[in-house]
Amino acid sequence: MRLTDIAARAGVSTATVSRVLNGRPGVGEETRAAVMTAVEELGYTRAEAGRPRHRPTGLIGLIVGEMSNPIFPAFAQGIEHAAAGAGYTQLLCTGSPGGISEHDYLDMLQRHQVDGIVIVSGQHSDTEADLSRYRQLDDLSIPLVVINGTQEEIRVPALSTDEHAAMDLAVRHLATQGHRRIGLATGPTQFVPTLRKIEGFQTAVARHLPQDPDGGELANSLFTLEGGVAAGGDLIQRGCTAVVCGSDVMALGVIRAARSAGLQVPRDLSVMGFDDSGMVAFTDPPLTTLRQPVDALCRSAMATLLRQIQNSPAEAPQPAAAELLFEPELVVRGSTAAAPTD
Amino acid sequence: MRLTDIAARAGVSTATVSRVLNGRPGVGEETRAAVMTAVEELGYTRAEAGRPRHRPTGLIGLIVGEMSNPIFPAFAQGIEHAAAGAGYTQLLCTGSPGGISEHDYLDMLQRHQVDGIVIVSGQHSDTEADLSRYRQLDDLSIPLVVINGTQEEIRVPALSTDEHAAMDLAVRHLATQGHRRIGLATGPTQFVPTLRKIEGFQTAVARHLPQDPDGGELANSLFTLEGGVAAGGDLIQRGCTAVVCGSDVMALGVIRAARSAGLQVPRDLSVMGFDDSGMVAFTDPPLTTLRQPVDALCRSAMATLLRQIQNSPAEAPQPAAAELLFEPELVVRGSTAAAPTD
Repeated sequence: MRLTDIAARAGVSTATVSRVLNGRPGVGEETRAAVMTAVEELGYTRAEAGRPRHRPTGLIGLIVGEMSNPIFPAFAQGIEHAAAGAGYTQLLCTGSPGGISEHDYLDMLQRHQVDGIVIVSGQHSDTEADLSRYRQLDDLSIPLVVINGTQEEIRVPALSTDEHAAMDLAVRHLATQGHRRIGLATGPTQFVPTLRKIEGFQTAVARHLPQDPDGGELANSLFTLEGGVAAGGDLIQRGCTAVVCGSDVMALGVIRAARSAGLQVPRDLSVMGFDDSGMVAFTDPPLTTLRQPVDALCRSAMATLLRQIQNSPAEAPQPAAAELLFEPELVVRGSTAAAPTD
Repeated sequence: MRLTDIAARAGVSTATVSRVLNGRPGVGEETRAAVMTAVEELGYTRAEAGRPRHRPTGLIGLIVGEMSNPIFPAFAQGIEHAAAGAGYTQLLCTGSPGGISEHDYLDMLQRHQVDGIVIVSGQHSDTEADLSRYRQLDDLSIPLVVINGTQEEIRVPALSTDEHAAMDLAVRHLATQGHRRIGLATGPTQFVPTLRKIEGFQTAVARHLPQDPDGGELANSLFTLEGGVAAGGDLIQRGCTAVVCGSDVMALGVIRAARSAGLQVPRDLSVMGFDDSGMVAFTDPPLTTLRQPVDALCRSAMATLLRQIQNSPAEAPQPAAAELLFEPELVVRGSTAAAPTD
């Protein structure tokens, strides 16, 4: 995350930038505004030559995944609040297996002449997807921001949780507790966040388990409870004493797999989630997890989108659609512990 | 569109109206605003002879509570799916403490000329709310359906979970397991669903604990975790061995209060939730709860709304806005057990 760039441009410390982006108190309104302006200015303006005239509707389209994964309602709430604060209303499109495609949702949002679109964990993060639609939206100068993953062909501002940083936090936490064989259970490898988790995990294993070159095990399944059960069973068989998961829901599946195998969590197996979503502070055991900075992502996504909406073509310089990475947090609860000593 | 009516109302020429409606340049901002205001006003004025002229937008407005209570994302997903199946898109408005009021959301939805509105657990269920807005919406013939609670003044179709039936299921389950002093922990008594839970609970206690006329204890707090902690502590002090809660989130608070008091759930205290929302199958212990039939409510709400949207007043007989009640289900998991024998 280019905290330093933002800090330099705003003329404040990186600690202050972090405080603002995470919505913490103790920052004056003027400083806060300076930081947000710097965030907006740093490479998030787009070329708007030839932008068609668009009558503002006051509508923002949001496309998210299934609401049954509680991280997506959290994003919906976050974007809705940020949008409402700026006088915009959110048109919500939620995914579901076999339901309406992102392509059809985008048709619909264009038909309703939304002023801008935010997509969370959509096709932009799928390396097997046809990305021509994003180029088309860009050609039409339709303001668009994507959250969690982007690809080179996509010339659209992207804001993501820093998966590499997350994996480093996770592996360090487990390695310092004596774990020497750690599994990573994630979803399909066609998705950018998954690829980043794998890369970050392998880097972190090499760093924190230098004496165990084979200390990292990978299992790819689905980002669901059932996916967690499958990946968890696999990793347990391969001798892992700790499993880091790609989502909290997967972690609940890994815990279920551990119990089916007669293991106790965290005594015999440490399990770590990803997201800090929903009721995971109340699960059995309370889930240690990597918190996505949802509020900061949503506020910055709306700020970036508004900048695009409000810019006239003349003002907007050539785009540098750099990706902005947001720091996750390690939230330690009861599902991780020292490695079993047998 | 009746260009002449709009032009007359806005005090401009029909050519100007046409230019504004087609987003063409050459119209001043003030004129544009006057035209749009006229459009909005005329769009919702009831013609003497029949249905107001309303150009379909394909938009449905949904107003729900805070997404941090997982029952509301479930309603948002349910309505979104039912709406998408009928070719409609959902404009989602989510509540938050100190956030945008229902009143302001309704203004916004009217401004966006939605074809219909669904409200879940809104002002319609608040006995202290000013209900004149509902009468106004009805006078304007804006299709509207409310979910979970209604009041006599509100002449709008209502669909609700049957709270009386839920309390009967809850108290019977606990009474047959030997509980003789059962608490009900709910939210503020100004809300219709809360009043119905209390009434249903008292009826159920009289029926299932005929030998214990004082077997039912009430505690009203907030529908939050903290509300559950407060109400739970109170009911434990009053000697309850089982607590039925107004929401799953409250139940998590009651479990926390029990642990603070040195009690084990369910050995020393049985706790029952309400909603079957989010991850409650994975909490510690897995939560016994009363499941709201969310999918059935959402499908029926959309069907009712579509009937209103498609019917012209001429065809539609005077509505008998009877409330439709939907059966809850008792889902028995690990947080309820036989009463302690001491």
